[in-house]
Amino acid sequence: MPETTSFGHVVALAGGVGGAKLAHGLAQALPAAALTVIVNTGDDFEHLGLPISPDLDTVMYTLAGLANPVTGWGQVGESWNFLAALQRLGGPAWFQLGDRDLATHLERRRRLAAGATLTQTTAALCRALGVGPAVLPMTDDPLRTLVQTDAGELEFQEYFVHRQCAPRVNGFRFAGAETAQPTPSVLAALDAADLIVLCPSNPFVSLGPILLLPGVSTRLAARPTLAVSPIVGGKALKGPAAKMLDELGLDVSALAVARRYAEAGVLRAFVLDHVDAALVPDVRALGLLTLVADTVMSTEADRARLAHEVLAFAAQPLVAG
Amino acid sequence: MPETTSFGHVVALAGGVGGAKLAHGLAQALPAAALTVIVNTGDDFEHLGLPISPDLDTVMYTLAGLANPVTGWGQVGESWNFLAALQRLGGPAWFQLGDRDLATHLERRRRLAAGATLTQTTAALCRALGVGPAVLPMTDDPLRTLVQTDAGELEFQEYFVHRQCAPRVNGFRFAGAETAQPTPSVLAALDAADLIVLCPSNPFVSLGPILLLPGVSTRLAARPTLAVSPIVGGKALKGPAAKMLDELGLDVSALAVARRYAEAGVLRAFVLDHVDAALVPDVRALGLLTLVADTVMSTEADRARLAHEVLAFAAQPLVAG
Repeated sequence: MPETTSFGHVVALAGGVGGAKLAHGLAQALPAAALTVIVNTGDDFEHLGLPISPDLDTVMYTLAGLANPVTGWGQVGESWNFLAALQRLGGPAWFQLGDRDLATHLERRRRLAAGATLTQTTAALCRALGVGPAVLPMTDDPLRTLVQTDAGELEFQEYFVHRQCAPRVNGFRFAGAETAQPTPSVLAALDAADLIVLCPSNPFVSLGPILLLPGVSTRLAARPTLAVSPIVGGKALKGPAAKMLDELGLDVSALAVARRYAEAGVLRAFVLDHVDAALVPDVRALGLLTLVADTVMSTEADRARLAHEVLAFAAQPLVAG
Repeated sequence: MPETTSFGHVVALAGGVGGAKLAHGLAQALPAAALTVIVNTGDDFEHLGLPISPDLDTVMYTLAGLANPVTGWGQVGESWNFLAALQRLGGPAWFQLGDRDLATHLERRRRLAAGATLTQTTAALCRALGVGPAVLPMTDDPLRTLVQTDAGELEFQEYFVHRQCAPRVNGFRFAGAETAQPTPSVLAALDAADLIVLCPSNPFVSLGPILLLPGVSTRLAARPTLAVSPIVGGKALKGPAAKMLDELGLDVSALAVARRYAEAGVLRAFVLDHVDAALVPDVRALGLLTLVADTVMSTEADRARLAHEVLAFAAQPLVAG
């Protein structure tokens, strides 16, 4: 493995499953104090009166070693007695809340109701679960992703979970974006970053909300920032990214993702999978450096390996170069 | 078994465990439409943002055949994965919320938040669980039992669960009693009652709050009303009734309970256990009719047997006589 502790501080921007996996790899490759993970909260919503933060929970559970490796969400070895009882009572059981997972939401609710911010609440939950790296919600303000579809404008979880991404997407709206601010912790982490990694998360609904917060994109542009493609061989490994690219009339390819970030001016380098090596000239034509790697993280070892490769690559042309 | 369907309508007033057992016995002895159970809500409280109604739940679970026969509260075959996870997160785990039980509280919260009354919510939950008799909260208004002790005035669950009834009791306060009203359903059930049964529940904190609601005691006084003693052989079968009698300077006996109800003018008859048969003359001296029975309900069959005995007794001197 290459020596990767030469980075003072690495900041990862992540959504759910794919982002959490690379964040976990980085957590294995770096000292805990050298990594901050900034997480999308645009998917957050209230369900049964509980504040649900799907991406924060996926990152937190993944870093704590509690994530369910099969579903990509929720906890491993979860039990479902609550949900079965709720179903019997005629309650809304479309959003799957496991018995252990419920503790996260109820404790989060309790802390928020007592006046803590989402940032403070997340820190407390992470501490209790033994998560080393800082995990930061992108904002403590309400910012909600709405998916504009042929079935109308849908709340994200309604689109994603309830309708299983079936409606055709024609755009997005981020309610609250006019006033939502990144937290001081987020801005401080970005200011201190020696490397910023856009994890392989959905560019529209996972990283998009983070990038549109005031001050985030300019900081990314000013520092060594790279992205790992969430599209491999024209497919998304998880979630609706490929379907969204297609429905928005874009190439369903890693190149389209690279172009999107390059046009936003936030990127210096892009990491593609081996199967997409033929796209390298096109990505370079966008003014980006490239790394071709095995980006599919099927095992925990894959996560650490990819993290090491990305850090070693970044140490050369981005930081040192 | 005696023929007991001669009653047009029986109303039972109940608190938690003991009350729920006799209510269950009555539910076995009567057609579902012939029984209404009015339940104490003075113990209700909010925990983790959830509206908890301990007595309503105990009655509902007991009538549904879901009650835990060992603890007397919660559901049989319950799992505790939520509570273990909450404990790991450093959340308040002193009040034991089982995984299945949580569904009741979250669904109740959801319905109340949508504008339903506690009466409507309870009816919906009971319907979903297949409970036949009407189960009515005594009021839809907030009325909270506070226990005045040598450790100060304590919320009921703080006294009962958290401090396990250890502080010495010197009185009670019922916050909200100035404005709380019995529901129209409660008054209508009492008005239609051919027999009213005060179940073997704590006279201070279980039936006391029901009796002090405006219009309840006068209706009890106007109709055939009997009570089954919650004190057997100078002991409470469950809960702090005996301890409270002692600390309030009263006899720890069935007689003290009979006297309390007799002085309130709400009773025509009193049911004592065989072990307390010697108290019969004293109870009769209060102007009450008496039935001596085996009042300890160890098994489900005991519940039905006691219910039949009580109904047969009531059919003679109270209704017919």
